[in-house]
Amino acid sequence: MIDQNTICAISTSPGMGAIAVIRLSGSEALAITDSIFQFPDKNKQIVNQDPNTLHYGSILSNNEIIDEVIVALFKAPHSFTGEDIVEISCHGSVYIQQTLLQLLIEHGCRIAKPGEFTQRAFLNGKMDLSQAEAVADLISSSSKASHGIALKQMRGGVSTEIKSLRNQLLTFTSLVELELDFSEEDVEFANRKELSSLSTNIHSTIKKLADSFRYGNALKNGIPVAIIGDANVGKSTLLNALLKEEKAIVSDIAGTTRDVIEDVVIIGGIQFRFIDTAGIRTTSDTIETIGIERTFDKIEQADIVLTLIDADSSFNEIIMFLTRMSEKLHEKHSALIINKIDIANNEMIDELVQMGDAMELPTFQLAAKHKTNLDQLIKFLIDSVQDNSYSQNDVLITNARHYESLRNAETAITRVLVGLQNEISGDFLSQDIRECLHYLGEITGDISTEEVLGNIFKNFCIGK
Amino acid sequence: MIDQNTICAISTSPGMGAIAVIRLSGSEALAITDSIFQFPDKNKQIVNQDPNTLHYGSILSNNEIIDEVIVALFKAPHSFTGEDIVEISCHGSVYIQQTLLQLLIEHGCRIAKPGEFTQRAFLNGKMDLSQAEAVADLISSSSKASHGIALKQMRGGVSTEIKSLRNQLLTFTSLVELELDFSEEDVEFANRKELSSLSTNIHSTIKKLADSFRYGNALKNGIPVAIIGDANVGKSTLLNALLKEEKAIVSDIAGTTRDVIEDVVIIGGIQFRFIDTAGIRTTSDTIETIGIERTFDKIEQADIVLTLIDADSSFNEIIMFLTRMSEKLHEKHSALIINKIDIANNEMIDELVQMGDAMELPTFQLAAKHKTNLDQLIKFLIDSVQDNSYSQNDVLITNARHYESLRNAETAITRVLVGLQNEISGDFLSQDIRECLHYLGEITGDISTEEVLGNIFKNFCIGK
Repeated sequence: MIDQNTICAISTSPGMGAIAVIRLSGSEALAITDSIFQFPDKNKQIVNQDPNTLHYGSILSNNEIIDEVIVALFKAPHSFTGEDIVEISCHGSVYIQQTLLQLLIEHGCRIAKPGEFTQRAFLNGKMDLSQAEAVADLISSSSKASHGIALKQMRGGVSTEIKSLRNQLLTFTSLVELELDFSEEDVEFANRKELSSLSTNIHSTIKKLADSFRYGNALKNGIPVAIIGDANVGKSTLLNALLKEEKAIVSDIAGTTRDVIEDVVIIGGIQFRFIDTAGIRTTSDTIETIGIERTFDKIEQADIVLTLIDADSSFNEIIMFLTRMSEKLHEKHSALIINKIDIANNEMIDELVQMGDAMELPTFQLAAKHKTNLDQLIKFLIDSVQDNSYSQNDVLITNARHYESLRNAETAITRVLVGLQNEISGDFLSQDIRECLHYLGEITGDISTEEVLGNIFKNFCIGK
Repeated sequence: MIDQNTICAISTSPGMGAIAVIRLSGSEALAITDSIFQFPDKNKQIVNQDPNTLHYGSILSNNEIIDEVIVALFKAPHSFTGEDIVEISCHGSVYIQQTLLQLLIEHGCRIAKPGEFTQRAFLNGKMDLSQAEAVADLISSSSKASHGIALKQMRGGVSTEIKSLRNQLLTFTSLVELELDFSEEDVEFANRKELSSLSTNIHSTIKKLADSFRYGNALKNGIPVAIIGDANVGKSTLLNALLKEEKAIVSDIAGTTRDVIEDVVIIGGIQFRFIDTAGIRTTSDTIETIGIERTFDKIEQADIVLTLIDADSSFNEIIMFLTRMSEKLHEKHSALIINKIDIANNEMIDELVQMGDAMELPTFQLAAKHKTNLDQLIKFLIDSVQDNSYSQNDVLITNARHYESLRNAETAITRVLVGLQNEISGDFLSQDIRECLHYLGEITGDISTEEVLGNIFKNFCIGK
């Protein structure tokens, strides 16, 4: 199943740096390195060196020196891929990187496909599939929260849960299948009551894992926050204020819905995606239906909804809007933000506070422009994320592929439960359990196809 | 003189990669690493490990795992900087890189200034100043030629020449200065004839090195080529054709003169900078004086001048222009390129060829659009670069600082020669020799000031 070629790639970020690292993996990694590398003591060879050692020397091409480098040596099976690995640290000019890569190809290496090093680690049993997938997540993680989830998954968090579920089921399947061998004797090795109780447990664990996808995915890709309010109400000022306060990173990313550009702000180690909502004010006094529907959709996508009100301006329309949206808002983490308290008159502010109380929405008074009173809002945002049924130690699902497999496993285990109630025969029962095992096995890669693997690893970066 | 802090920096190219390398150097590098790194066997410590070894483990911050990494260990004095060095290979997410860097700072590292690792290598006597400067040139080299020069300089090419000159002079200075101690006795330890002959040799070597700057600098930064011709004559088509032919790299760089954007094409491992010249055609039949002057300046800057003529169009003006420029053109590597031979009539082509012969300029007939007959032109370009007094083994000066020091040393040694002719006294002679030694010492860093070092290393990239 494993392509036996020795592969190579530039593993560091593309472009010029002080140094760059070119990685080789495969049975010929050491021999190929020897064909282009020369120790200061010309009698020495890489193939004779101890594993986990570093060596200084020159890279030669037709007796011409290309660079002076450090070679790092790892030997199978104690390496990332489980194969012999050589990492060449060269001077980081693009010319040297390219020349070195070309030289390796001339000496028998093949350029690695995206994720091929990690794929080999999986195929050589160094990690299971969900751990391998976490390597890519780890590399692309940009906040404390997404980094934490990826690291936990890479260290086997998801795998442990899934493997424990599979092992419990496997015991029972073998008992049920043993009954089939003795089918004429009508024996029952697998206690149906115990199986039912186990299946109920497994069902609830699978469901909890699958349900965690919405939260896990949000933590990984950013918690969606909708800010409702008129265009001039101070939305971008508020975003900038949050940004400054937390020295966070802001960037523009293309949203999941292609028509909006979203602002990403990292607050307290959590990434928030601020969904751009169109202003809801229209030319007439009543609110345009289309405007409402559009905003309604944005609220639907969000986990947190902030309604931003300019206390120094007319806010009749937004109040009408809030009243009509009330039910929807209470399904989300919603708050009223009363902005521009530095210039608004107190009566107006009081009126808005009372309205917030009447609607049972938390209200925050602030002046985004002067960055006053932001602490409370920041706390609300962080608490909104943490206010749910998952503790820090819970395994969260962040991968759509895992989610799909879990949902399929849930369907299968539900059939097992129904079957047990209806006292269906062992062979049907066994088939449903097998199906559940199959879907769980897909997550860890105990069950996998070339196509699935191809799809997973093609999204990796080169050199990993 | 050496700042005793342990310094750290990301040494790989900025941005996301499969892996990134963070480098520490200084007496506390191992201890600081131990304070954040944990072996799988918790009793092990980095400080107790052998030099030139690799170690797998976790980076911890407040008992929380930040990443699983490989630590590479080098011990003083056998390292790049001559100090203890640790290189941490982590997963290449920007979040991990930044977190790790911050963690190192919390544990006592200081962020390295640009080039500070190389500066320490210099201060610790691992390399001289011209070698240190070559490290930066090597990292930014983008063609075979510039890479080759930088590598030769890094491996001590320039230093060897300069040190040999200094040593010869030093012997004589000590003899001359010994005379001063016995000045009342009117002895002559230093044979004036030998000193004169040596000084003549040194003068010619210094002059040759200094003169190589124009060529070396051109090889390093690109050979300047001016293409003269009307805007519609096919200049960009020719550039693209050269590009395609040689699979070279083209990019826009801001030229040394700020008003022109230059095309850079690498042909046969040599970088050519194509200087943009304005079209010389004007509305009237005569050529505008300003247009001529402007083009004249461009020719002045160039090493190679190609005059591109559209054989299918009127070319009276360009011929008038060439006639007036004839003298200047012959100071450069000049050629006539007759373009569009696929559509021009043969009479016109013949007329142009005859004109080229009359002016004693090599002519090339081609059709840039169809990439025909480019080989001859490519050979001409490469030969123009190599057609000079420098062989492949000659040391070339590419650094303006070295050039300046050499010119100053040349002036000083010239004074020595004149002084010897005029039989000036030993103390004046000694002073001039000392001055020459001083300037030569500046190149290798035997003579250096904080300010000079600061200026040199501030242009390095971070992490080297």
